[in-house]
This record gives sequence, C-alpha cells and structure tokens, in this order.
Amino acid sequence: MTLSRKDFLKLTTAAAASAAGGFFSFLDAPAGFAEDVLRSDRVRKIHDHIAKNRQRHIARLQEYLRQPSVSSWGMGIQECAGLLMSYFKRLGCKEVELVRTDGHPGVWAYHDAGAPKTISFYIMYDTQPFDEKEWSSPPLAANVVKLAPFGDVIMARGAVNDKGADAMVFNAMESILEVEGKLPVNIMFTCDGEEEQGSTHFHQVLAPYRDRLKKCNAHLTLGPSQDADGNIRMGLGGKGICSVELVCSGKAWGRGPQNRPIHSSRKAILDSPTWRLIKALNTMVKADGNQILIEGLYDAIRPPNQEELELYNTLIQKFSDRLLVGEKQNAKTWINDWPDAEAVRHLIFDTSLNIDGLWSGYTGPGMATILPDRAAAKLDCRLVPNQEIKPTQDLIRRHLDKHGYSDIEIIPIGGGDEWSQTSVKAPVVQSVVSVYREYGIEPAIWPREAGSSPMAQYTRPPLSLPAADGGLGHGDRAHSHDEFIVIEGNDKVAGIVRAEQSYVDILYAYANWPG
Amino acid sequence: MTLSRKDFLKLTTAAAASAAGGFFSFLDAPAGFAEDVLRSDRVRKIHDHIAKNRQRHIARLQEYLRQPSVSSWGMGIQECAGLLMSYFKRLGCKEVELVRTDGHPGVWAYHDAGAPKTISFYIMYDTQPFDEKEWSSPPLAANVVKLAPFGDVIMARGAVNDKGADAMVFNAMESILEVEGKLPVNIMFTCDGEEEQGSTHFHQVLAPYRDRLKKCNAHLTLGPSQDADGNIRMGLGGKGICSVELVCSGKAWGRGPQNRPIHSSRKAILDSPTWRLIKALNTMVKADGNQILIEGLYDAIRPPNQEELELYNTLIQKFSDRLLVGEKQNAKTWINDWPDAEAVRHLIFDTSLNIDGLWSGYTGPGMATILPDRAAAKLDCRLVPNQEIKPTQDLIRRHLDKHGYSDIEIIPIGGGDEWSQTSVKAPVVQSVVSVYREYGIEPAIWPREAGSSPMAQYTRPPLSLPAADGGLGHGDRAHSHDEFIVIEGNDKVAGIVRAEQSYVDILYAYANWPG
Repeated sequence: MTLSRKDFLKLTTAAAASAAGGFFSFLDAPAGFAEDVLRSDRVRKIHDHIAKNRQRHIARLQEYLRQPSVSSWGMGIQECAGLLMSYFKRLGCKEVELVRTDGHPGVWAYHDAGAPKTISFYIMYDTQPFDEKEWSSPPLAANVVKLAPFGDVIMARGAVNDKGADAMVFNAMESILEVEGKLPVNIMFTCDGEEEQGSTHFHQVLAPYRDRLKKCNAHLTLGPSQDADGNIRMGLGGKGICSVELVCSGKAWGRGPQNRPIHSSRKAILDSPTWRLIKALNTMVKADGNQILIEGLYDAIRPPNQEELELYNTLIQKFSDRLLVGEKQNAKTWINDWPDAEAVRHLIFDTSLNIDGLWSGYTGPGMATILPDRAAAKLDCRLVPNQEIKPTQDLIRRHLDKHGYSDIEIIPIGGGDEWSQTSVKAPVVQSVVSVYREYGIEPAIWPREAGSSPMAQYTRPPLSLPAADGGLGHGDRAHSHDEFIVIEGNDKVAGIVRAEQSYVDILYAYANWPG
Repeated sequence: MTLSRKDFLKLTTAAAASAAGGFFSFLDAPAGFAEDVLRSDRVRKIHDHIAKNRQRHIARLQEYLRQPSVSSWGMGIQECAGLLMSYFKRLGCKEVELVRTDGHPGVWAYHDAGAPKTISFYIMYDTQPFDEKEWSSPPLAANVVKLAPFGDVIMARGAVNDKGADAMVFNAMESILEVEGKLPVNIMFTCDGEEEQGSTHFHQVLAPYRDRLKKCNAHLTLGPSQDADGNIRMGLGGKGICSVELVCSGKAWGRGPQNRPIHSSRKAILDSPTWRLIKALNTMVKADGNQILIEGLYDAIRPPNQEELELYNTLIQKFSDRLLVGEKQNAKTWINDWPDAEAVRHLIFDTSLNIDGLWSGYTGPGMATILPDRAAAKLDCRLVPNQEIKPTQDLIRRHLDKHGYSDIEIIPIGGGDEWSQTSVKAPVVQSVVSVYREYGIEPAIWPREAGSSPMAQYTRPPLSLPAADGGLGHGDRAHSHDEFIVIEGNDKVAGIVRAEQSYVDILYAYANWPG
C-alpha cells in the first residue's frame, strides 16, 4: 500500500495506524537461532574471556584516549593514525594503509578471516577540541571516575564520540581472535581523521577502495547505543541535507552600496541588499515559516511505503512516551500544536527548510549606522526519499530566478549527505535486533532519523550496502566537557564487559544469519 | 508657498525649481559690513599677530595631539580633560569645571567678555583608537610631514576630528585676547569625552548648565570646513534618527526553540523565530525595500517650506556637479535610477528605513546545522521635520502588533538624536556666510544634512539656539590611519594661518551682525 503525499499529509494519526495494518511483526530470528548462535559455547567462551580481561580492556581505552587527535587544532593526528594502524595490525589485518587526502589522512585496513561474509566498518579517529578548565577530570587523562548512577566511567575527550567506543569494539574483536583464532566475518575498515570537521575529504579515503568495498555484504557500526535508561533507539537511515548560502550583494545586483557599507543616512537614495535578501527569503516559505513555496520541492518525495508505515505505527503505539523526550527539553510545542504522533510523522517523512544563519552589517552591541553592501543566509533543506541535493539546489535557483532574484548567489556548503535508508528486513538489521532481544531490549526502530550523516557514501550507489548500527553500553556529553563512557554500569545500562560481549554477539549473529 | 508631501513627491526637478521661484537671494551682509568689520584695523592686527605666531600655534596643536585621549580604550582621558581645562584658563575663563558623568567626564568653561552676545561652543576631546603599524607617521607623534598637494600637514590621531581643529580655534581666540584683551563675544564651552562612543552621557554634562546655556544667542562651531578643492558645504541641520533593535525569540513567542538553538533537523516539527523575523520585516517595506509600509510613518512629515525649496533649488542649479561626488564612489545608481537632483531632494526631505544589522544563528565559515532560538535586526529610521523618535518607535510597535508580532521585542538603541534645523536667515548663519564670501567662497548650503548629530540638544527646546558651523582649513581621514590637518595649504585650501584668521573673522562677524 502506498499513499500519495497529499493523502499522507491529510492522515490523522489514528488513520495512519490503521493504514499500517497494526503492529509491525516481522522481526523474528530463525527458529533456534538464539540457542545455536548467541548462547553457543563458542560465544560463551569469548564472553568469559572478555570478563577476565576487563582491566586490560580498560587500559586499552585509556591508551587510545590519552593519545590526542583534535582535528581542528591539528593536534596528535599523525600519532593517532599511527596508533590506530597498530591496532589493526594487532587485529591481524594484512592490509593496513595510511591514506593521504587534501586534509588529515585516513586509514584503510582489511581483516581477511576467510569468512563467507564481509562487512564494511567506519571509524572516526579525530575528536572535538576541549577547554581543559571546564572539565572535572582532565580530558586527556582518561581517568576512571565515579559518576552516578553509572558507577565507574572513563572521562575523556572522545570517550563516547568515538574513540572510547571504538576501543571497546577492538577489545571485543581481539577477544574473538584470542579465543577462536579468527573473526566470524571479514572486515574492511575505512577511517576518517576529519569527522569533526565535516568529513570534507573522506571521499578521497573511500575512492581508492571503492571496488574492494563493493564486495562487502553490509555496513555495520558497533558501539554503545543505550540511553541513560538503557533504552535503544535504532535509525535505519537519515535524511539528506542540501546546505546553501544565499548571498545578496550590491555588487552582483548592480544597485545600492557596491564595495563596502555606506553611511546609513544614504538609505534615502540607495537600494539595500539586506532588504532585498529579506524580500527574497520571504518568497520561499508561507507566513507560518514552515510550508515551503519553492516550486517543485515536494514533487520528488515518494509516499511512505508499507514498511515505513508499519515501523512508524509501532513507534507511536509502543514507544510514544519516549519518542520526543530530548526535543521537549527546549521546545514547548510543535508546529501547529501537533500531537507527538503527528510530530514524529513529520520528523520521519517530511522535508524542511531551515535558516541556520543570517547576517548583514553590524551585529555588535549598540549601533553602527551603516547601509550594508551585502547580506547572507545559510539554509538547509532536509531531504527525504527521493529528494536529491543537486536537483534541490536547482529548484532554489529556479525559484530565485523566477521571482527576479537572479543576482542572488547560491553557494553550496557542506559535504553533501544524501538520504540513506536500509530496510528493516536486511539481515544486518535483523541480527542486531536479535541481539537486543536476547538482552531483553525492544529497540524503538525509526525508519529514518531526522538528521543527516555521510552514511549514504556506503548505502547509496555505487556501494549500495545495507547498514545498521548497534550494541550495548552508554556514554554521553559528546562535544561537551566531561564526556564519558560507562565502565561499570548498572541494571539498565551495560558496563564495558557486557557492552563488548554484545559486539561479539552481533558479529556472530550477522555471520550466522541466513542469506 | 508650501506643498503637500504627495505633491512634493510628484514634483519633477524642473517643477521644483520653478516652485522655488528661482535662485536663493537673501544672503547679503548689511551695507559696508565687510569694510567696517572684516577688513577693520582691529581684525587686521589680530590677523598679523596670528601670522607672526605661526610656529607657536603649530606647537600648540602638537601639544594637544600628543596627549592621547582614546575614549574606547580609556587612554589618557583624565589627563586630556586636565589639559583642556588648562587651555580654558589660558583663555581667561573664570569658570572651568570637570563634570562627572556615568562615563568619561565632561568639561564646562565660561569666558565672560562682558559682551552683548553669548555663544555656546561644543568641544569633543576624545578620539578614535588607532593601529599604529598602519600609520606612515606615528599617530601620537603629531609630526609635521609633507602631503601633496597641501604641503606641510600635521599627521596625528585627532588631527581633524577634532583636537587639532579645536587647537586652531583656541589659537585664534588667544590671539584675539593677546591683541585686544577680550573676546568680542562671551562663550560657554560644553565638552564631551565620549563623542566617539556615541555621546551616551553627554546629556549629563549639559544638564547642570541648561539654565545658563539658555542665555546664549547662538551655537557656533568653528573648524576647518573646506574639502580638498577648497569648497565649502554648509548643513543647516540634520535628520533625527530612531534606532531600534527588533528581537524575535522562541522564548517570547512561546514557539520553536526556547532557550538555545536546537539541531536543524528539528525544523520539521519546530517553528523558527528566524523565519518569523523575516516575515515581520517583510511587512515593513514594499517589494523595492524603499517605500515604508509602517502605517502613519509619513504622516508627521511637514512639506518643504519656501526657504528649504529655495536652498534646494540653489544647490541643484549652482552646485550640481559636486553634490553627490562622495556618494558616487561606492554606488552605481540611486533608487529608481533617479537623476542626481531627485536624489538630493530625497536626501534632504525624505525619511528612510534602513537595516543596519541582521543576525541569527551561525554566521562563521562552513555550516553549523542549527535552528536558532532567536533572530535580531538593527534598524534606523531617519527623521525629517516633524517626525520625532518616540512617536516613531510607537508606530513601529503598533505596526508589529497589528500584523500579529506582539512578541517581537523593540529595544531602543543610541543616544536619540532628534532632527535639528536652523534658518538660513539666522544671524549666526549669515555671519559665517559673509566671511566665506569675503574669502571668495560661495558655500553650498544644504537646508538639512542626511546624517544625524547631537546638535538637537542645543537647537531644540529647551535651549532652541540657532546653530551654524564654519571656518577655513582642511583635514581628512578621520577614523582612518594617517589622519591629518593642513598646516601649509595651497591656493585652494587654507593653511593654519588663514584658517585661524577666518575663525577670528567669524567671531567678529557674529559679534557685529545686527540683531
């Protein structure tokens, strides 16, 4: 069943539920799968090995976190790439290569286990910067400290985003090797040293290995995915993002101040590029600031399909109390005072046009009486299937031209993440879910997250890999001070041992999933 | 003859000229005035005295300029106020007082010459900051250097704006005292140490002396007023300025992000204060960005009167080649491709609504994907008689309310300069013009400048003083590096001697003008 966009937007939540034909139900592992794989002796031995090596595994997190790798400062990047390469060698990767780019280098590594299945694995080895005086424990010390209600945690820049998390994954893989001698899947690692700067050159890391990566069966991201209450939210993809800067200048317009601002008293005789930008932006959305008036912008959107509607319906019926908790901390009400279910529907299925930045003239305290010679706005349009970045830019151009603003320049910004989506039926997704269920966790599965990521570089042609991410564990305060990853854990949130064990489970689940 | 605004705006330039009844002609000194006053032995002796003391006068400029007084850095302010007070004592002022304010102090001084007429005289003793490495001669050295085509100049911060200029005036006044023993007029000096910071506290300097200042007959500003070609432009007043900041926040609106920006992917479910500000601003002007749609904003404007039309007409007919020379350096064309005469008409007689600054969200390089919780704009509305600041703010408030934007906050900014205007018939204006004519210069007289100044604090009630400014001499690059004042001069531009002589002339002209 598919709905036209118009029909879809007319649906009430109740109607959407019935249109979806009840709860989503096709998430079931093959008969005996848990016993044969997840509870097998082989996996239990690896679990035990992890528990026994807890101290050594904690030390590994500390070693990786104590090596700085702040991409925006250029701090420790080469050294961290070297350390990462040594980890891949310890994992028995025969190919470990530093990949030069126009920015910080990437890393390629390949572990050939002689296994039937091959996964693609993305690693970012850089971190955000830090202001040490804001931290309660030094960001490069990676100390084990107490943090209620989680018990011991490691506090460090990169603890959860992503170096600490990746070190836990390396621990898990090494444990498999130490017990079994080989991994259950082959792994191609592609690593980014500029994630925190927008992964500007990451395509240069992928390019030389694209043909190799085509041999992968799936793209898998392991890491701590629980929230503070132990709940799991899975996103099967993300929206695309078309980011542009609109620049209106007197120079390009041929009117108003030409090369620099002019005294504001001259507004009596001079046109204003700033007023012009406001008039141009005004044509792009309706009075509510929400409905987009760029002609054709909604046309490429395909209606939600049956699977998406079922996933949506399940979210609304089973997880309604925690779907928008984070968003509510900084918002009183949704657009049009929508109920949460309606908001979730738009978050998943709707495009949006946002002003991320806007500026002209003097923006400091007090007044500077100037008539600015230019004004600019940064906009982002979130794209749902089948909206694409380039055609969206073209629609904006056509809209501005049609309204007489041919002089307003459109400058594309950002790496250009297209939308990305994997079917819930993909084995890589199903295996992750089967592990969650083994731990008694029912994940809230979003057919699509509202955010954007470079994941499309793996999931869209030419690679077209199904992708999933998951694993137990918890960390928080990425990009902020006192970033941490949980080591001890509690009855809701996994500590380092259970988290690493869950990564082993997922690898074995995927290796053994039929198909 | 007066015209309605509507009729006035319909006038072609030619019609305006004929409506004004030909050239302006009532600028004539009383019979024999030049011989009796400007060429009198008394004045000639003072001229000679100035010529003889040229070196000492130059040293005085250097002394004052070498004393720093950068108000924004708080550098040398107290010391400069002290030096200024010593100058007033040398001028025989019996009252010399430092006036405390909530900012930098002002100075009050009164020279009682026992003369029939009293003038009010404004002095600013602070300067802009400077970046020494940009200067070809150190900004605090006040060296005499060669600068073509003017010969010797003094290069220093404050050389022309205004300390060097004021030192020349003090030289001129001292010369009168040294020759005559007393000045031809009494003078009340009110001095500002924060002009370069917007004269925020200057009303606190005036307040204690307001009743004294009411006894003045006129407000006179002496200083170098020639451009590089020796031409003189006189402005008989300025427009008022109503400056406001409009702030649209999610908090005040009760919608969208409340306390901080939120991830821009949430635009799909959240309203945007930035789009709202754009929609609100959009209602304030027509599509051209020029015609103001704030209801009632044009209502208070009185049509140009006969004197203004005659002055305007004279400007157009006699000075058309140099009226807008400065403006043309940074502008290709005026609004609606007006001819210059039409532009001048709007510059003098029209109100305007300008966006001086506009900002929201992230304005740095690249992209930060945020939905901002606030957006703001700085606007200034230039006011012509009889528009006033407070009623204009009220009209903006009413407009926003009427269009449903009651939540958008209006924050008044700036000192609040009202419009100011003196009739060309005022004796203080006529005496200045008579001196120019004595030197063979026909001034271009603008009934009103497009800019704004705190002059209204003297010219509007309660003081209601007629005001004029003038004098020979030239300087340039105020606020920029290599600021200078001409010492030597050439056949077009007066050097220090002729400039100081012209200030003496103006004082005697005004003292002896009938009425």
